[in-house]
Amino acid sequence: MRQMTEDELTQTVLDAHAKTSDARVREIVMSLLRHLHAFVREVRLTEAEWMKGIELITAAGRMSDAKRQEVILFSDLLGVSALVNMVSAGVPEGGTESTVIGPFFVEGAPERKSGESIALRDSGEPMIIRGKVVGLEGETVSHARIDVWQTDANGMYDVQDPEQPEHNLRGFYRSNERGEFLVKTIRPTSYPIPTDGPAGELVRAAKRHPWRPAHLHAMIAAKGYKPLTTHIFDAEDELLDQDVVFAVKPSLAREFKRNDSEQEARRHGVKAPFLELDYTFVLARA
Amino acid sequence: MRQMTEDELTQTVLDAHAKTSDARVREIVMSLLRHLHAFVREVRLTEAEWMKGIELITAAGRMSDAKRQEVILFSDLLGVSALVNMVSAGVPEGGTESTVIGPFFVEGAPERKSGESIALRDSGEPMIIRGKVVGLEGETVSHARIDVWQTDANGMYDVQDPEQPEHNLRGFYRSNERGEFLVKTIRPTSYPIPTDGPAGELVRAAKRHPWRPAHLHAMIAAKGYKPLTTHIFDAEDELLDQDVVFAVKPSLAREFKRNDSEQEARRHGVKAPFLELDYTFVLARA
Repeated sequence: MRQMTEDELTQTVLDAHAKTSDARVREIVMSLLRHLHAFVREVRLTEAEWMKGIELITAAGRMSDAKRQEVILFSDLLGVSALVNMVSAGVPEGGTESTVIGPFFVEGAPERKSGESIALRDSGEPMIIRGKVVGLEGETVSHARIDVWQTDANGMYDVQDPEQPEHNLRGFYRSNERGEFLVKTIRPTSYPIPTDGPAGELVRAAKRHPWRPAHLHAMIAAKGYKPLTTHIFDAEDELLDQDVVFAVKPSLAREFKRNDSEQEARRHGVKAPFLELDYTFVLARA
Repeated sequence: MRQMTEDELTQTVLDAHAKTSDARVREIVMSLLRHLHAFVREVRLTEAEWMKGIELITAAGRMSDAKRQEVILFSDLLGVSALVNMVSAGVPEGGTESTVIGPFFVEGAPERKSGESIALRDSGEPMIIRGKVVGLEGETVSHARIDVWQTDANGMYDVQDPEQPEHNLRGFYRSNERGEFLVKTIRPTSYPIPTDGPAGELVRAAKRHPWRPAHLHAMIAAKGYKPLTTHIFDAEDELLDQDVVFAVKPSLAREFKRNDSEQEARRHGVKAPFLELDYTFVLARA
């Protein structure tokens, strides 16, 4: 046995993984190995820098739980989530585009009846979304599950803010026989991603602002259709072209219309003026 | 604002990090971004595959604590630790070579007096290491701290095995005025790395054996000298050229000599036959 060169070491590591039986896993692992090793060689990573990276990844994992996913936040900030979404989304022409899931989706949010508010406390500008789910040929998609989640007017998700009731501004609706559902909520606001964890170090080092433009998250699941994870962005938000996690797609931005009618506000159980949005999710078949 | 292409997205992410003020951090982040994005584009990573990666990293972080470092184990298995060691070690000609630290170093191991055993229970073949610490010009290095750690005869470190006394087969010695120290231990054994965590999935997917050749870890710190993290490998181990974490350097392998003298065994407080090794750590100046 003799001392290896850097290239020989990389080749030895590749050879050791060449017997991976699943062809797709092999493809991914081999590519990851080549790029990780190329990165280490290119920057001549020192052991102290490597240890800093180990510590950041470990801290991100340890901080993650059912309510906060710091590893996803790292991926989001590095633009990896947005790129994965771009290379893999495969939304056909005419379908609603997808975007990143983000670190704040929570399993187990409750069902909301059509027209029931996800805003569990009086905080922001009322907003009504008349939603519809259809297929690519315009066919009605009934019994779809539409999960929605957003921050409160203070820019924080319920899981970040002990003052908010549990599941505030989260829940799922079901589309009816006509594919329709009615969301009652508040206007989403732009907000800074949390920078109190290891991902915050990256934001500060790069001197980036931590802001995301205002949006509502939505995740649609319907039998026979491809699942869709997306956002609805506020078209008036000035930060649309500088989202800290690179997740904006122009087709997902909408103007929210102001309605001053006291009568219509009463019908929805809100105070005038309120905001209105008609939004149709167009799903591709599975 | 218009829809970006994949290349434009990568460029946008690079631009967003171009203002990183620390030049070295900028160099590392920009290179990491380029290689991570190239990897995602090359394999057309799907969102499900991305989520699997997020879950593996998160699980590795969550599993890590003061006693086990699964993120380091991942880095070791991918050959990243060995490559970082290779590109950054910079050991001058004649100095003792370094190698990876591994996932089982533990802070706070106790000091052992010269000749005191780190083996706290009767398990393996007794071994005596007559150690010495010198500088590159042969000068004596006294008052060096020599941390050593190894598995017990069952192939497990104390922190993996509730049956072992705390700090079994760990501790640190100090070199005396002549640079010398005497380690009493047992013969190290080859052992499988733990595959009960997320890193184990990688080993199984690649159909790799999980074994490391027999070795004793050592970490030397001395005022005025570069710290050294290294192993002493058993030259007779058949797995020397197939270490699962790619950490073997030929210069670190030694033959352990068998001594049948009852008298010499008694002098060391062990039973004959026992193994002997003379080992000199050669440090570079800081």
